[in-house]
Amino acid sequence: MAKDKNEFVNQIADIDTDFPQWYTDVVLKTELVDYGPVKGTMVIRPYGYAIWELIQQQMDARFKATGHVNGYFPMLIPQSFLMKEAEHVEGFAPEVAWVTKGGTEELAEPLVIRPTSETIICDMYAKWTQSWRDLPLKINQWCNVVRWEKTTRPFLRTSEFLWQEGHTIHATEEEATAEVMQMLDVYRDFAENVLAMPVFVGQKSEKEKFAGAVATYSMEAMMKDGKALQAGTSHNLGQHFSQAFNIKFLDKDGSLKYVWQTSWGTSTRLIGGLIMTHGDKRGLALPPKVAPIQVVILPIAAFKPGVTEKAREVAETLKAAGVRVYLDDSDNSAGWKFNQWEMKGVPIRLEIGPRDIENGCCVIARRDNFEKKTLPLAGLAETIPAELDSVQKGMYERALAFREAHTVEAHDRASLIAAVNEGKFVRAMWCGERECEEQLKRETGISTRNMPFGAEPIDEVCACCGKKAKHVMYFAKAY
Amino acid sequence: MAKDKNEFVNQIADIDTDFPQWYTDVVLKTELVDYGPVKGTMVIRPYGYAIWELIQQQMDARFKATGHVNGYFPMLIPQSFLMKEAEHVEGFAPEVAWVTKGGTEELAEPLVIRPTSETIICDMYAKWTQSWRDLPLKINQWCNVVRWEKTTRPFLRTSEFLWQEGHTIHATEEEATAEVMQMLDVYRDFAENVLAMPVFVGQKSEKEKFAGAVATYSMEAMMKDGKALQAGTSHNLGQHFSQAFNIKFLDKDGSLKYVWQTSWGTSTRLIGGLIMTHGDKRGLALPPKVAPIQVVILPIAAFKPGVTEKAREVAETLKAAGVRVYLDDSDNSAGWKFNQWEMKGVPIRLEIGPRDIENGCCVIARRDNFEKKTLPLAGLAETIPAELDSVQKGMYERALAFREAHTVEAHDRASLIAAVNEGKFVRAMWCGERECEEQLKRETGISTRNMPFGAEPIDEVCACCGKKAKHVMYFAKAY
Repeated sequence: MAKDKNEFVNQIADIDTDFPQWYTDVVLKTELVDYGPVKGTMVIRPYGYAIWELIQQQMDARFKATGHVNGYFPMLIPQSFLMKEAEHVEGFAPEVAWVTKGGTEELAEPLVIRPTSETIICDMYAKWTQSWRDLPLKINQWCNVVRWEKTTRPFLRTSEFLWQEGHTIHATEEEATAEVMQMLDVYRDFAENVLAMPVFVGQKSEKEKFAGAVATYSMEAMMKDGKALQAGTSHNLGQHFSQAFNIKFLDKDGSLKYVWQTSWGTSTRLIGGLIMTHGDKRGLALPPKVAPIQVVILPIAAFKPGVTEKAREVAETLKAAGVRVYLDDSDNSAGWKFNQWEMKGVPIRLEIGPRDIENGCCVIARRDNFEKKTLPLAGLAETIPAELDSVQKGMYERALAFREAHTVEAHDRASLIAAVNEGKFVRAMWCGERECEEQLKRETGISTRNMPFGAEPIDEVCACCGKKAKHVMYFAKAY
Repeated sequence: MAKDKNEFVNQIADIDTDFPQWYTDVVLKTELVDYGPVKGTMVIRPYGYAIWELIQQQMDARFKATGHVNGYFPMLIPQSFLMKEAEHVEGFAPEVAWVTKGGTEELAEPLVIRPTSETIICDMYAKWTQSWRDLPLKINQWCNVVRWEKTTRPFLRTSEFLWQEGHTIHATEEEATAEVMQMLDVYRDFAENVLAMPVFVGQKSEKEKFAGAVATYSMEAMMKDGKALQAGTSHNLGQHFSQAFNIKFLDKDGSLKYVWQTSWGTSTRLIGGLIMTHGDKRGLALPPKVAPIQVVILPIAAFKPGVTEKAREVAETLKAAGVRVYLDDSDNSAGWKFNQWEMKGVPIRLEIGPRDIENGCCVIARRDNFEKKTLPLAGLAETIPAELDSVQKGMYERALAFREAHTVEAHDRASLIAAVNEGKFVRAMWCGERECEEQLKRETGISTRNMPFGAEPIDEVCACCGKKAKHVMYFAKAY
């Protein structure tokens, strides 16, 4: 069995010495994704898509609980729409895919495949909005988007990806601001409590904000290599788009006003975040709330009478208790199965053999900390869900401890760079100047991540350039 | 109130004299859809999208219960893929949208936006299939597709639409055939029991089958104007695609074999089917299982003390019982509300006023048959769900009775044409010849719909051309 295990681990590159290859091995070998035939595209395989479905369900419930509804807007956007908001076109035009032919005819006006849907949604919102009674309008859509990327990696950056994009319009600036903050908090709550992924929330710099926004807020997660993943963004669009698209409403006071707007999004990138937050040398480790299989049941010595039957009975009991369970009664060796399901990140392995049955118990092994324990067969409908909760919490706490151990303050440029190069997030004072962050990025690959809310100043000067400091900022290398 | 009502009804064209305009009025005025900026595209508005979500949930559960999993394949397909299966390219090439430019560069090979995904899925299946142990592989995807249509109508035919497409591969022809029939039956069950829409299931003619299939089976529903809607199809692809894409497996007997393949799909077209099956002169009528709002509660004389409170209490009770309920406590007139919610097709209106509260009761009005009755406030958590079941059944039975009253047999060409022109489905004998059905369609617009399974022959000769008859066939005009 030990031999089996080693064989298996060797299929995946070493996480400590070659993190990028480890990631590629994990996503391909656990059958989360495959490469599509067109460069930069990915196929989301059933095991990966099942994670996405669990993300969708739980996030969508949060959107609906905060008063949002879903809709669907066309994917093909007239070129002229993209051109209406100056910063937006500058940001997105270089990376859009162009449809120039429909059937056998050349199109009079080329169409872009949505890289994001602000423009087409604004066009409709302008049509639907007459008076203050029509506001707020808060629509989300789940869809695919295309961005023509040069360098791609499954889940993290692909030419096509799946996401959700929320688009809201409001009568007042205050309401819009509240919406932006509410959705950032929905994202944070989701990341922490569903993905077990701690995040820093805060405001992006001017350079890093969304093309067309007044301000962008993000959540940034730390991956196991110390790099940052921007895992979700919430944008305050002010009146930039409502002016460009003429979205006006008749207010209670009888005057015509432009609406105040927000947009916010998360994508299949979250799956990449999950992998790099919780994975280890054995492969994936999935938090129970997004694990397609929460418990895998392995009958031991299944040829002995009664073992498979008991294993089936346990599976039925757990299913009835709402646990996502899979009974692996294949004829593969126990060692192979152990490794396979560990690699696939199943939170709990439940073993049941003849002696266990005699003793009225079974053995469970946790994927997160490898602890094994014996549980009575009676009461599994309560003890297993409790174990799953404990795994979920444990994974969050471990990730949080990791992040805390890898986040440091820096007071000067040299130590900032040194710390990031050691795989850390650096919390430091920043001047707020575009030139400062551009130079840092050019020279070191380090970028500003976000500015935490209400943070106490650390120093008087920018750790990066020595000028007068304005903000506390997180610095890191990023995906 | 009568005046209000008339005003309102007048917003929608008369269903009996102008069905096409009635349809357009209904989809726009109930805010199911709007037209997108690019010709032939539609925006699915929140009320329409909520119907689609209910369709998705209930259909997806049926797919999973029959052993299918979901995945996601890239939308952009290399031109060369489309060309590999001869009939497939002939069928689809004239109606695809072409991506020729990515960012600022012209693409070396143009890409098509999927009109359907057989080709790209085959490419991946070929990669994933080695041995009989890998089979069957049964993946469904929910996604958007684009077909460059000349004449479009919301839900029924649009350049972009949402759908699900299932794609399966099997070791034997028998298994593939069983899958094709199983999914056709899943569709029939869904149409009848969820959409309350009776369907005829059967095999399509050679002319009408899917481009690349060995055989196509469909469900055909009768709309209120007597026209047919092809509401779902299940294709037996045989080995056409597996040979073109080289999908082989090593069988138990040690030999390499091509897999047997199926595909099957339904789309947002089902919403069009719902509308034209159940709608009436007052607008939409939605079966409870797909109604975003199942019960609308209208407080009557809400200014009187206790009315709004009681209405809220009833709403909470019903919500807790799993009913999708909306309390309309807006300051619109009762007449306006009656008409609004009738037009929107809400299955049950529940009115509650001061006298009702005194008497411990409320009044409900059914959208399907306009019956009103008084129900005790105590026990609504049981009586309302039972009423909803009754509405669901009643709607199916009414649609079935309508179809039966509008389906006739014909024994010769003149009576076949006359009956279809009166808004009927015709069941008649058919020769099976392509030329026969092509001529009929060219001259009259009538098409073959499908051939029922195991039907008793009616005559010896084709009702259409007089040659020897081979099949019982349904004839109709179709969307």
